[in-house]
Amino acid sequence: MLNFAKKMTPVKPFMDEDFLLTNEVGSMLYHNYASTMPIIDYHCHVSAKEIADNKKYENITELWLGGDHYKWRAMRSCGQPERVITGDASDYEKFEAFCACMPSLIGNPLYNWSHLELKRYFGYDGVISPQTCAEIWDLTSRRLADDDMSVRGIIEKSNVALICTTDDPADSLEYHIALHNDDTFRTKVLPAFRPDKAMKVQAPDFKDYIVKLGNVCGVEIKDFTTLCKVLLTRIEYFDALGCRTADHAFDPKTIFDVTTTLSRAMSISEIAFKKAMAGEVIQDDIALAYRSALIRILAAEYTRRGWVMQIHMGVIRNPNSVMFSKLGPDSGYDTIGTIDVLSLKAMLDDLNNSDSLPRTILYSINPNDNAALATLIGSFQFTSDEAEGLRCMPKMQHGSAWWFNDHRDGMKSQLKNLANLSSLANFVGMLTDSRSFLSYTRHEYFRRVLCDVLGEYVTNGEYPLDVDALAQMTCDICYNNTKDYFGFSL
Amino acid sequence: MLNFAKKMTPVKPFMDEDFLLTNEVGSMLYHNYASTMPIIDYHCHVSAKEIADNKKYENITELWLGGDHYKWRAMRSCGQPERVITGDASDYEKFEAFCACMPSLIGNPLYNWSHLELKRYFGYDGVISPQTCAEIWDLTSRRLADDDMSVRGIIEKSNVALICTTDDPADSLEYHIALHNDDTFRTKVLPAFRPDKAMKVQAPDFKDYIVKLGNVCGVEIKDFTTLCKVLLTRIEYFDALGCRTADHAFDPKTIFDVTTTLSRAMSISEIAFKKAMAGEVIQDDIALAYRSALIRILAAEYTRRGWVMQIHMGVIRNPNSVMFSKLGPDSGYDTIGTIDVLSLKAMLDDLNNSDSLPRTILYSINPNDNAALATLIGSFQFTSDEAEGLRCMPKMQHGSAWWFNDHRDGMKSQLKNLANLSSLANFVGMLTDSRSFLSYTRHEYFRRVLCDVLGEYVTNGEYPLDVDALAQMTCDICYNNTKDYFGFSL
Amino acid sequence: MLNFAKKMTPVKPFMDEDFLLTNEVGSMLYHNYASTMPIIDYHCHVSAKEIADNKKYENITELWLGGDHYKWRAMRSCGQPERVITGDASDYEKFEAFCACMPSLIGNPLYNWSHLELKRYFGYDGVISPQTCAEIWDLTSRRLADDDMSVRGIIEKSNVALICTTDDPADSLEYHIALHNDDTFRTKVLPAFRPDKAMKVQAPDFKDYIVKLGNVCGVEIKDFTTLCKVLLTRIEYFDALGCRTADHAFDPKTIFDVTTTLSRAMSISEIAFKKAMAGEVIQDDIALAYRSALIRILAAEYTRRGWVMQIHMGVIRNPNSVMFSKLGPDSGYDTIGTIDVLSLKAMLDDLNNSDSLPRTILYSINPNDNAALATLIGSFQFTSDEAEGLRCMPKMQHGSAWWFNDHRDGMKSQLKNLANLSSLANFVGMLTDSRSFLSYTRHEYFRRVLCDVLGEYVTNGEYPLDVDALAQMTCDICYNNTKDYFGFSL
Repeated sequence: MLNFAKKMTPVKPFMDEDFLLTNEVGSMLYHNYASTMPIIDYHCHVSAKEIADNKKYENITELWLGGDHYKWRAMRSCGQPERVITGDASDYEKFEAFCACMPSLIGNPLYNWSHLELKRYFGYDGVISPQTCAEIWDLTSRRLADDDMSVRGIIEKSNVALICTTDDPADSLEYHIALHNDDTFRTKVLPAFRPDKAMKVQAPDFKDYIVKLGNVCGVEIKDFTTLCKVLLTRIEYFDALGCRTADHAFDPKTIFDVTTTLSRAMSISEIAFKKAMAGEVIQDDIALAYRSALIRILAAEYTRRGWVMQIHMGVIRNPNSVMFSKLGPDSGYDTIGTIDVLSLKAMLDDLNNSDSLPRTILYSINPNDNAALATLIGSFQFTSDEAEGLRCMPKMQHGSAWWFNDHRDGMKSQLKNLANLSSLANFVGMLTDSRSFLSYTRHEYFRRVLCDVLGEYVTNGEYPLDVDALAQMTCDICYNNTKDYFGFSL
Repeated sequence: MLNFAKKMTPVKPFMDEDFLLTNEVGSMLYHNYASTMPIIDYHCHVSAKEIADNKKYENITELWLGGDHYKWRAMRSCGQPERVITGDASDYEKFEAFCACMPSLIGNPLYNWSHLELKRYFGYDGVISPQTCAEIWDLTSRRLADDDMSVRGIIEKSNVALICTTDDPADSLEYHIALHNDDTFRTKVLPAFRPDKAMKVQAPDFKDYIVKLGNVCGVEIKDFTTLCKVLLTRIEYFDALGCRTADHAFDPKTIFDVTTTLSRAMSISEIAFKKAMAGEVIQDDIALAYRSALIRILAAEYTRRGWVMQIHMGVIRNPNSVMFSKLGPDSGYDTIGTIDVLSLKAMLDDLNNSDSLPRTILYSINPNDNAALATLIGSFQFTSDEAEGLRCMPKMQHGSAWWFNDHRDGMKSQLKNLANLSSLANFVGMLTDSRSFLSYTRHEYFRRVLCDVLGEYVTNGEYPLDVDALAQMTCDICYNNTKDYFGFSL
Repeated sequence: MLNFAKKMTPVKPFMDEDFLLTNEVGSMLYHNYASTMPIIDYHCHVSAKEIADNKKYENITELWLGGDHYKWRAMRSCGQPERVITGDASDYEKFEAFCACMPSLIGNPLYNWSHLELKRYFGYDGVISPQTCAEIWDLTSRRLADDDMSVRGIIEKSNVALICTTDDPADSLEYHIALHNDDTFRTKVLPAFRPDKAMKVQAPDFKDYIVKLGNVCGVEIKDFTTLCKVLLTRIEYFDALGCRTADHAFDPKTIFDVTTTLSRAMSISEIAFKKAMAGEVIQDDIALAYRSALIRILAAEYTRRGWVMQIHMGVIRNPNSVMFSKLGPDSGYDTIGTIDVLSLKAMLDDLNNSDSLPRTILYSINPNDNAALATLIGSFQFTSDEAEGLRCMPKMQHGSAWWFNDHRDGMKSQLKNLANLSSLANFVGMLTDSRSFLSYTRHEYFRRVLCDVLGEYVTNGEYPLDVDALAQMTCDICYNNTKDYFGFSL
């Protein structure tokens, strides 16, 4: 009865048109639907100035290795010395060092991202290696000289409908204003509000930051109450430029102090603020009360304005003191910590109790938190009975696989987890979180993984082959859900 | 040498006879063995009264949406307003809202459970969607009017040999007595002892509960010692009706206070008890000592009687205060917390030291705990040399994938983890944990996943195609192990 | 367009030449490259004395069940009584009990390891079961009488180039010296330095241990400073015999006290040491400061000598007090705890700050830590610009799937995680961690899994079919990386 045979699978060509697609249904969904949708990149770290200036690049090293700490980290993992990573080596030497690492990065998303970028933006179908280093350098240098390879050119050929940058409250947003007034560029570029520096009352540069923020607003910020007012003014300023979202980074571990009432937390915050401005040391519990007070103030305002609050949690930042003192933050040394779900739950419940819980997207850097977060969002879903103009989107979201999890395995795990525990079809979808204008291929990467997962359910007989329903959810997760959830007018 | 080809898998029909089965060996094991075994549902939340009364249902909304908080949660995740979930919408409107969500629940176990229930109990092979809502409503309404679709009819056609309900010590068990004396119904219905309310000395309704429990027993419970005596009396009462298991829910985080001796914990418990009865606030450490004392008393008695102790851990209950005040507990808001394995280990060791560790099944709501629990059971396995009448089952068990993990991925993870770290063939098997009489199809779902996992090991060449051994372990995990582990007389 | 068909996979023969290999590329890499490389077993628990004595075994029970607590644990999980595990049953009875368990261990790595050992060392291709117990007993008894089945014979036929045993600083290393001077045996046998007993200042036998260590060195160890000096002397002694690595076991939870400066920690350590020698109780925070001081002293010396530091973390040891008092440690009761990544990070950063961070391999017993550890190593990678004679290997490593994770699923998870988050091609590779001389087949098991993972990336089109690059990384991970990372001269 049973069939004994050697089970061996055929080899797929390297990154062909069905890259990451393992079933016909997924392939059909990707090619017919997902690949045609515009991109909304609702959280990233690209520079509005570079878009406004329509910057051009000298060479592939500037583009790839100038600021991409993912690549720096990978090069260190391959045994490259710092001189050819962030040191004084020439641009070509650095690119050579990167090419030398590539063959060792089997299974690393950088391997596939880099090849995708060369394919899509430079038409290069070869394999990156020491042998091809020179030809890639030449090809990309030539191509980068072309007019259509400016920042705006790249964005346009990537079919990007909208970009949210990440901006400090003290930012003048001058480049956003310029872009807002520029009819020649059709991609919307909106600011996003990231008040982390105002939250970090224990940071050595807190005082300088507060002075700077005051100067921007023409106000002397002499107490916590004034700081709160100034931040609300800035929210209004951002909102006027179309901003629809704020973003917060919460470090491990304790997120929220639920035992202190808001009024008491406000009093403690006044003390904390004064200590900080006087350069005094602030205890952890005081700093926690301060952050707990400030997030309540800010979240209430986000709610009032219908903004989305994004919360990025669990990163241990700057763990290597030696290298931090040499290279500063965001240089490829950060690592995965843990989050305190009970504390996070306490915060969401507290905000919800005071009608101050905005639409919220939760991200954890630790993949172990996937199940906890995908259930926790279900604890605070709410949809009012009134029509809101928009399609009714569920209020809480578990964010797309983030940073260290931004690879095939991490994405599949996040998507399947969301399917198991919530409603995958209502997922708000992908963002790049990137510093580079070539990273829009990560949306392609995500969409391939998404279509593969959807197709897998059908291929396994767990969902019927209802092409209309599948096409709808594909387009929704790629574009419509994002648009409706944030309320972008596109 | 190597074969370059497009690797694409054919599509399985939607939920056909090989649903969840991906290999021939698994298919053979399921169809020839697993599907033929009776069901023992050793932990669930169905109502003994409804069985005794042989209740009938008006319509599919009463059956599906009357109390199933899994479905409520899913509907909220799809953006449905509360009015059509737990609100005042009509039964048909609620069913319409549920059908509207279904296409979005790709990958969610509810999607497959709902279809399985329609197939097995109503003979409906279509796909649930807004388009089929009316026809399903009509079909199910008609069918529910039939005599064989009463509670007992459903149980009988599900081939259920035995059910353990979940019962409070204060319960009179009158319906169990009625069923015990009723020769016309062949499925055994036994109570299970769940003394959570007696453990929760900090709960606002603790005092009321103690008074009620005292009334049931005709004793004034004026101190902790009396409470312990009363509970032992109730254990005896449950035991006389065939009860073979107790069940405990342990919240995050600390489970057990190992630093306090039993006699000291008893003294603290007396104080805690008096404070609670006087309506005073009880500190966390006092409450922990109280729970630690009480579990020692109870576990010793379970051991003496040969009962199985089930421990469900890690749920964050009622995280949303607003909705808890509106809908109460078990309304679809609970979420995944973490457990403290060191504390759990301390409890098991303490009980073991005093010969008070009964056969025990450990469940965690957090899938991250799978590996820790599957090894922890190995730390307390014990099999006496004396024959015990029963086949020698290992004493400690890692419970089946629970609640939020009760889906294909969660089950496969629990089963493979158990295989890697313990002995899968000795697994005590599946339970529904359900409030609904249609949920016996979850045993079918589990058995399909189980057979698929077993077949996978064979198909991969990791286990020989020894049909006798495979058939034996299939039947054992589906039925024999459960029977022998609990000592049910069937 | 879409192809509807029953998707069923053919069955692979039980453990044939393509065992664990699911794709042609992996099969080619295993058979042509991985299987030909010598073994470096850089961390294990075999006895140097037994190698020096060229011990022989009476029967399979002595070999398999004499000290292998993995098997004891498995037998308890199958319901075997202690009498036939560690009790007074005859050797044959014990083997019978083990054979009785085997069919229940589907999916357990022991099932496949045991069969691999019978295949490779005894030429037995049957299936272990109660039916084959007698024939296996006879075959193995006969074969063990042959000269080539001595310890050295087994090592030689396993193609082992180098073994690192695990040795206490107080060990005389007499058997290592004997082996060092023995030209007839070509496998290198080096000691590894494991100073756990010197770290455990709270252990009841600490004082006895210190006296013993002092006697070995002819020094009265009357204070902490002297202890440190003695340990450095022992490091020198080990180094002279070719030792290249130290090994530490860190229990849950807190690993390092970062708040105390080294000089202050030294003072506390003097007090802790004196208390311990006086038999006084030592508080947890004092013990932590003591361990934090000692690890700083030792790590600095490892760094100076270019040794590799291995850190094994998170095991809850001896959780079952009753069985610990009967059988002592390492008897199959240990279980999985958690590690505190923040504390570990603090230790690495502190060591790095003082140029005292040696090459380091991190292992956690909890598979949930895989992602955190594979990123944490990236936080401390460093490669100097100077050529070091050796190929430049990255400094920090995430160790191979350890102990409870040493199975197909655990290995795949560790390897893919490392690929996603670091550089798989630079992985230091496999070790057995075993007490048995038959365990070299675990290298075969690992290599098959490794080649399968590498082949999978190619088969999926994620990496090109570049046989040279794939062959290189296969040989590197199997052998070259280990050699270069430790600096073994082979």
